[in-house]
Amino acid sequence: MKSIRIRTNKRVEIIDITSKVEDILKDTNIDDGIAVIFTKHTTTALAINEYEPGLIQDLENMLEKLVPENAGYLHDRIDNNADSHLRAMLLNSFLVIPIMSKKLGLGTWQRILFLELDGPREREITISVISQNE
Amino acid sequence: MKSIRIRTNKRVEIIDITSKVEDILKDTNIDDGIAVIFTKHTTTALAINEYEPGLIQDLENMLEKLVPENAGYLHDRIDNNADSHLRAMLLNSFLVIPIMSKKLGLGTWQRILFLELDGPREREITISVISQNE
Amino acid sequence: MKSIRIRTNKRVEIIDITSKVEDILKDTNIDDGIAVIFTKHTTTALAINEYEPGLIQDLENMLEKLVPENAGYLHDRIDNNADSHLRAMLLNSFLVIPIMSKKLGLGTWQRILFLELDGPREREITISVISQNE
Repeated sequence: MKSIRIRTNKRVEIIDITSKVEDILKDTNIDDGIAVIFTKHTTTALAINEYEPGLIQDLENMLEKLVPENAGYLHDRIDNNADSHLRAMLLNSFLVIPIMSKKLGLGTWQRILFLELDGPREREITISVISQNE
Repeated sequence: MKSIRIRTNKRVEIIDITSKVEDILKDTNIDDGIAVIFTKHTTTALAINEYEPGLIQDLENMLEKLVPENAGYLHDRIDNNADSHLRAMLLNSFLVIPIMSKKLGLGTWQRILFLELDGPREREITISVISQNE
Repeated sequence: MKSIRIRTNKRVEIIDITSKVEDILKDTNIDDGIAVIFTKHTTTALAINEYEPGLIQDLENMLEKLVPENAGYLHDRIDNNADSHLRAMLLNSFLVIPIMSKKLGLGTWQRILFLELDGPREREITISVISQNE
């Protein structure tokens, strides 16, 4: 298992980590199988979609509309980031992507998105590669 | 890795693909493990739930309520389908389902649902089967 | 494949099942790989996040806000639980978590949450463990 470390710069920030994941695949001995991408934090998320700046802003706006910051959450009495946790659960903590010939089996517009939801912080994402041996 | 191709007929359309996935499992040599079902598109999604026509319409209505079409999205200036991308991210691009004795380990009411969110189009879903070898 | 059985006590109830999953890992021969946790029901869900009572209540409140009970759903004419199905699809039916040295590769605050969305009922969650053999 390998890991990626990311330093985020804003409270909410969406980063394309596709090339970092691809670099890790180059270092493995596995040709075909799956990659499991897992974020170790309760206030971050992962998604697969297009990285287009307008769409990235639309995604931030959707999260703010569905789960507004500072909306009287009980968890905010302990730690002022309930919205970050709740948004993370609406999205995903992990992704599973096919690997073919040491490459991610993504479609043309698919990118791996890491969502910082309570930054800025230092974050760690692990990559597990599982072989397909029929 | 095998793939399923689907021709959709409407902008939003929810299709039960369970039997197509089961057909692929019959052709593999793997008895126990997991199936990874992955859609290669940024405006489609996958879900596991009951295929009951009323519920399918409720699901379409929920997506329209949470992420309405044409709500002034920035991405709509480039390509008029921001809602399709955002709905895809609220759901999933992939599913992981246990396999036992060459069969999907689904519960009684669970079906594999493919969601076209920006059709009609030709779509591709890949199936990776990973063996459980203790 | 092993399974966990849970008896729930309320219509909506969120239970930390992390220690039950860890107990199953101790009984396997796999040191490194992934665990696939799968709920066999269409009105339950799984999530990874912090188990803090205030946040758990915030999560229940978010689900009620985004997908209110008894909001005139078509599926409610058949079975009075459309909200349970729809909430399950907004979250996840399965989780994939890395395993390292027979332990779950969770971060400090991450717990495995099981969400009963239409209880009280008897529920079954399966655990598939897949080895990482490079």
